[in-house]
Amino acid sequence: MKAEIIAIGTEILLGHIVNTNTSYLSRQLAGLGIDVYHQSAVGDNPARLGQALIKSLNRSDMVITTGGLGPTVDDITLETIARAIGKNLVFKKEIFKRIKNNFKKRRCRMPKEARRQAFVPEGAVALRNDVGTAPGLIIESYNKIIIALPGPPRELTPIVERFVLPYLKKITPGAYTIKSRTLKLMGLAESQVNAKVKDLLKLSGDPTVGIYAHVGQVDLKITCKGKTKKETDKKIKKIENKIGRRFGKYVFGTDNETLEEVVGGLLTKKKKTLAIAESCSGGYISNLITNSPGSSKYFIMGVVAYNNKIKTNLLGINKEIIKKKGAVSKEVVSLLAKNIRSLACTDFGIGVTGIAGPAGGSKNKPIGTVYIAISSAKRTVAKRFFFIGTRQEIKLQTAQQALHLLRLSLI
Amino acid sequence: MKAEIIAIGTEILLGHIVNTNTSYLSRQLAGLGIDVYHQSAVGDNPARLGQALIKSLNRSDMVITTGGLGPTVDDITLETIARAIGKNLVFKKEIFKRIKNNFKKRRCRMPKEARRQAFVPEGAVALRNDVGTAPGLIIESYNKIIIALPGPPRELTPIVERFVLPYLKKITPGAYTIKSRTLKLMGLAESQVNAKVKDLLKLSGDPTVGIYAHVGQVDLKITCKGKTKKETDKKIKKIENKIGRRFGKYVFGTDNETLEEVVGGLLTKKKKTLAIAESCSGGYISNLITNSPGSSKYFIMGVVAYNNKIKTNLLGINKEIIKKKGAVSKEVVSLLAKNIRSLACTDFGIGVTGIAGPAGGSKNKPIGTVYIAISSAKRTVAKRFFFIGTRQEIKLQTAQQALHLLRLSLI
Repeated sequence: MKAEIIAIGTEILLGHIVNTNTSYLSRQLAGLGIDVYHQSAVGDNPARLGQALIKSLNRSDMVITTGGLGPTVDDITLETIARAIGKNLVFKKEIFKRIKNNFKKRRCRMPKEARRQAFVPEGAVALRNDVGTAPGLIIESYNKIIIALPGPPRELTPIVERFVLPYLKKITPGAYTIKSRTLKLMGLAESQVNAKVKDLLKLSGDPTVGIYAHVGQVDLKITCKGKTKKETDKKIKKIENKIGRRFGKYVFGTDNETLEEVVGGLLTKKKKTLAIAESCSGGYISNLITNSPGSSKYFIMGVVAYNNKIKTNLLGINKEIIKKKGAVSKEVVSLLAKNIRSLACTDFGIGVTGIAGPAGGSKNKPIGTVYIAISSAKRTVAKRFFFIGTRQEIKLQTAQQALHLLRLSLI
Repeated sequence: MKAEIIAIGTEILLGHIVNTNTSYLSRQLAGLGIDVYHQSAVGDNPARLGQALIKSLNRSDMVITTGGLGPTVDDITLETIARAIGKNLVFKKEIFKRIKNNFKKRRCRMPKEARRQAFVPEGAVALRNDVGTAPGLIIESYNKIIIALPGPPRELTPIVERFVLPYLKKITPGAYTIKSRTLKLMGLAESQVNAKVKDLLKLSGDPTVGIYAHVGQVDLKITCKGKTKKETDKKIKKIENKIGRRFGKYVFGTDNETLEEVVGGLLTKKKKTLAIAESCSGGYISNLITNSPGSSKYFIMGVVAYNNKIKTNLLGINKEIIKKKGAVSKEVVSLLAKNIRSLACTDFGIGVTGIAGPAGGSKNKPIGTVYIAISSAKRTVAKRFFFIGTRQEIKLQTAQQALHLLRLSLI
């Protein structure tokens, strides 16, 4: 089964709103094994919408439209659908009753125009909308299916979950199950990951493996199809293990797991505590660590030593060392990690210092130069990095690498 | 001039990523008075992309593509464009040099495949990409324009701002100007803002005013059209003043200004310094403050006193007070703000303590109870808040309110 999605609304063409409905619907359809080869958006223009509809109905089995179901003259979806499939608009008493009730419930006066929403293409099945007034519609015509949904996501989502997905499951009984699993990698560049899984990367067919690079992190997403959940799970597991063997410790988590959750889980399991002394990352590492519920068990304190005086007075780093080696140096970062650990009496200390930009770089220490140190009772290890990006991206990569290094010390 | 946008990538069709590039580009084109009547998305499939390109070139003057410029075999945009307009791909030494330099700057080895990105359709003008390796391209052919841009927003946006917009301005003189201005409000709920500007809210026609609520913040967006920049600016100014008079100090900034930038600007202007002692917000306030370039001038230090021992040992808060009043109390938050100010010798101190959840709430102090204090040489003022939302949303609202209160002390 091939489907496509047409988003309707001049506000989308003007870029006033981001078209999240289309990605939401695509994800739902992919989950049912229904292929989406085209997504498009057109304005509140009957001629262009009509052409788009006819083109889509010719090349696909199903078209889902979003938007244009409101009560104003701008809302042209239903007339245009009716014309495209040669049907009339008919007045539906039940729909009108529901619209009237909706206004009554909200204690609002119903405007005259609201009646317009009770006219739907002949033969359409209405899908109740509990949030707004315009119902969703399923229209079957000449072996093709049109599903028209309201534009506001908070109206669309409940209709999809309650009516559209069960309907689609019913009409695609033999449909296979699709399942995805994302393996999350830290510490390797996209090109390095790419080189190691080149033979597995494939975005069509079954299974598919895609590579997605984010700032400082690379995801590998496996998607498999199967007749049963068991079959799909087995297929996923097989590739997951293969990829796992190739990357070992570089895989830090799966699906929605975050690096800070993984690190938090390891600290909890091993009953270890942590303190952080940050300079260029400005509190971002502490912020990530404390995003995890229960982090107060292992996170004792953070210091943002933004001014060199604080590095000296609070963290006991000799002025002379800062002067001689510079605040951005291996020596200073090691002392930051070591001294915050002893100040807070923790098992681990993270130290960070660097140049986040946009000013402050030099030839030897360009913007993006960052030192990170991890200190434990046994040893203190410092590493230098050269990050590229905006100030915020450098802060982000710093935080990720710091958590990555801590994770490696914990496993 | 008519333009359309084609987003390329199977990950978009699968709904794995939300297509924000298309709305960003549409906004930019609308701002230049260039009409966008169609947006579409296709996968990494040469046949379907080829059809989409030809259809778009037939009905529009300009096509902007996003994505598919990477080094792997999935990246099919340039070959497909070249085929659609009957041109060859040619190797460009300058582009290859830039790609090599990019890897060198990051001190990474360049993989063999990277060379592929230096092959571009004959006659194409390359637009420098300082963030990634694939350049953007402008291709003029038979009175039509194709602009090919890389998919990652952080690569696309700078190329658009630096090269594409100036190019488009040059080729569309005489176009009318559209301009938007966003007024950003803190400290009022959406319904309160709505009630005060009901008479101005209007989403079609000219001018338009829209209301957009975010967590802890409400935006009012004004959009005007005019024959000249002067005319548009004048129209905007008129409504901006009207709204400004109604909300006064609640308007903290405009357009892309962030609250932390505004606060940073005030601290710089008044030559004041700041230190922050956070508990429940976990470093988020320090992180926001240090997102602004130059923040090292006014931000001296932050402490994340996550453990009560730190509140006592480092920040000198009497154990008995914490025991008697609780760590989440007016007394403790006032001392946090006061003592961090004296520890760091700054003009201002922010103190924060609260319950971010999901555990730790009680009847008197439910999850979301947060105390914020601002301390200066003159006085220390503490306020209690009850925030609603997830752990992260409570941290976010805490940080925003803390910055909002600091801003009010500075104006």
